[in-house]
Amino acid sequence: MADHLASGSAGKPIRCKAAVARKAGEPLVIEDVIVAPPKACEVRIKIICTSLCHSDLTFWKLKDPPGCFPRILGHEAVGIVESVGEGVHEFVEGDYVVPVFLADCGECTDCRSKKSNLCSKLPFAISPWMPRDGTSRFTNIKEEILYHFIHVSSFSEYTVVDIAHVTKVDSAIPPNRACLLSCGVSTGFGAAWRTAGVEAGSTVVIFGLGVIGLGYNLAEVAEGARLCGATRIIGVDLNPEKFEIGKKFGLTDFINPTSCGNKSVSQVIKEMTDEGADYCFECVGLASLVQEAFDCCRKGWGKTIVLGVDKPGSQLTFSSFDVLLSGKIITGALFGGLKAKSDIPILVKKYINKELQLDEFVTHEMKFEDVNKAFELLVAGKCLRCVLWMEK
Amino acid sequence: MADHLASGSAGKPIRCKAAVARKAGEPLVIEDVIVAPPKACEVRIKIICTSLCHSDLTFWKLKDPPGCFPRILGHEAVGIVESVGEGVHEFVEGDYVVPVFLADCGECTDCRSKKSNLCSKLPFAISPWMPRDGTSRFTNIKEEILYHFIHVSSFSEYTVVDIAHVTKVDSAIPPNRACLLSCGVSTGFGAAWRTAGVEAGSTVVIFGLGVIGLGYNLAEVAEGARLCGATRIIGVDLNPEKFEIGKKFGLTDFINPTSCGNKSVSQVIKEMTDEGADYCFECVGLASLVQEAFDCCRKGWGKTIVLGVDKPGSQLTFSSFDVLLSGKIITGALFGGLKAKSDIPILVKKYINKELQLDEFVTHEMKFEDVNKAFELLVAGKCLRCVLWMEK
Repeated sequence: MADHLASGSAGKPIRCKAAVARKAGEPLVIEDVIVAPPKACEVRIKIICTSLCHSDLTFWKLKDPPGCFPRILGHEAVGIVESVGEGVHEFVEGDYVVPVFLADCGECTDCRSKKSNLCSKLPFAISPWMPRDGTSRFTNIKEEILYHFIHVSSFSEYTVVDIAHVTKVDSAIPPNRACLLSCGVSTGFGAAWRTAGVEAGSTVVIFGLGVIGLGYNLAEVAEGARLCGATRIIGVDLNPEKFEIGKKFGLTDFINPTSCGNKSVSQVIKEMTDEGADYCFECVGLASLVQEAFDCCRKGWGKTIVLGVDKPGSQLTFSSFDVLLSGKIITGALFGGLKAKSDIPILVKKYINKELQLDEFVTHEMKFEDVNKAFELLVAGKCLRCVLWMEK
Repeated sequence: MADHLASGSAGKPIRCKAAVARKAGEPLVIEDVIVAPPKACEVRIKIICTSLCHSDLTFWKLKDPPGCFPRILGHEAVGIVESVGEGVHEFVEGDYVVPVFLADCGECTDCRSKKSNLCSKLPFAISPWMPRDGTSRFTNIKEEILYHFIHVSSFSEYTVVDIAHVTKVDSAIPPNRACLLSCGVSTGFGAAWRTAGVEAGSTVVIFGLGVIGLGYNLAEVAEGARLCGATRIIGVDLNPEKFEIGKKFGLTDFINPTSCGNKSVSQVIKEMTDEGADYCFECVGLASLVQEAFDCCRKGWGKTIVLGVDKPGSQLTFSSFDVLLSGKIITGALFGGLKAKSDIPILVKKYINKELQLDEFVTHEMKFEDVNKAFELLVAGKCLRCVLWMEK
């Protein structure tokens, strides 16, 4: 499909296919695009696989800023470095890499600290541009500028990514598994592992995705909690099908809020457990559910972890007395608190060692050209993870 | 003063003096009261010193429940065990002890866990009764029942306290210092030490007590942060006098919110520090200030610790996006996260070793009969800690 083979293309623009989001909510258009060569601190990546994540859906539907069009979406992917920009020594042509929306520059206070994964040099932004010079590497044949998406834009055969957003991985992990570590699985897994610090024997509650999805965050957090040794993992969701799916990832119990009678979910959880859960994850993105998650937590040490994205401007509310008197903790996490360059290789190793389950997340695989079918599946809540192959 | 000397009084009621709060906000009345002998799991303590804490003031003023009258207030104290109830082996007559409002039974899940200080067997309650049998040990000569206050009631020459609420301390610490470890200093110090886990080199912000007090929480948290090795301790208060007081306890900077011009306190703090503080303590008890404290915290790891008590029903509000994207942590603490029986002896040792400052907190000492003068000083914001001596 691409006009240029990887070899010999360095330093030159590459003409290839990309799926362009031209209007909010309308099918992506497979178009010929021109991908400029990488500048300093950048690499150009030939994408092998890209999978769909709910954030792609969110920004595909979003008419107003930070939604913008025409844009190349996609941010869960794996590929091969095709060429590197001036002065780049960290990567060479042929490296097997995972791009990540969250930077890990390795130099700033945050990247050097064990406590933060929020790079200060290249802070997280829903930006339509490359992070350092604020320009795009994508045009089309009419010289129209195409916008980037959270520094990845993997719905393209080639993309340019800043080196702070790229992690080299062991090629022993197949591409249709490696791409899952680029965002979703890492986020859910990391939230249990790094942000919450789930301990062996603990009790975990996960508020799932309501009726709009098939609960991938629920499954991903469950998988993290399972690997951390949690002995009780309780899913809360309106869709009972998720219990069956969740069981593969360690879910031991399931609560449908509509079946709690006169009781609140937190009352039911408290009766099921020793006064409440050790860790509660809110993956739905509803401020009111964060409060319910907080109530499900055990006094003394219960930790509420906010993972769901509510509407801009939405507020989380907690009783002042409860926060003061309960000793509970509230926190949130971007990318599950993981540092891409050091933590993704650990997850790869866990997969290779057959500890971390990834195969089970992939319910659909298809050709890149069928990207719109993949969107339909995701919208309909019919898939956990759908992987698109650039060449198959 | 007391009708019975300690020796020979075991098993009999003791008639002694107590300061009884008879009506909300009205001067306490020094009366003769009858203190029943301790029952199983209880000790009777001859109080040596008691100091005043803001919670005494709060419940003295509170007309409606959990305010109740006639009540014997006071909960910061030190004394000598006069006699023990049936089956009590942990204490013997003559033990030098500090009573504490928060139980430490040593047996329940929480007391056995390193993560919690919230005893499940005898949970925290603003109770007018003894914790196990829900009765009072106080009457007066007219056989009127007098209510207890948070399981201590130290404004009496003798009081009965549950053994879970009593800690034995080294007699090397003088009584007019030991009593401070019963509540206030321990709470502020513990919040920095145990709840926040302030580290050497860190930056701390403490929101003080506004105009109503002379900033004892501010000073106590500062002392904890100083001992933990914080290099920058910034006080925020409307009363600039507090900077001078706070300097003794390690305060390095001071911000008066009314002198910030068009900037918010958090903007000023961010400019003064590396993007915000590592730890922010809200000691005022204003929900809106908790949000400002959260904003003062540094992304990635900044921790907001709620210590101030707002009105019942008040809500803490945070931006959902900020919690999700910032990686910051919100928590609260009762008694600074300390476990009374294991942590108070550590603080005593720190005082004896001249690490922890206690002398500097005591601005006033007087006779117990002058308890109403002490209330006036506290109401007027004229004292850090006022110690009352039962016999002097």
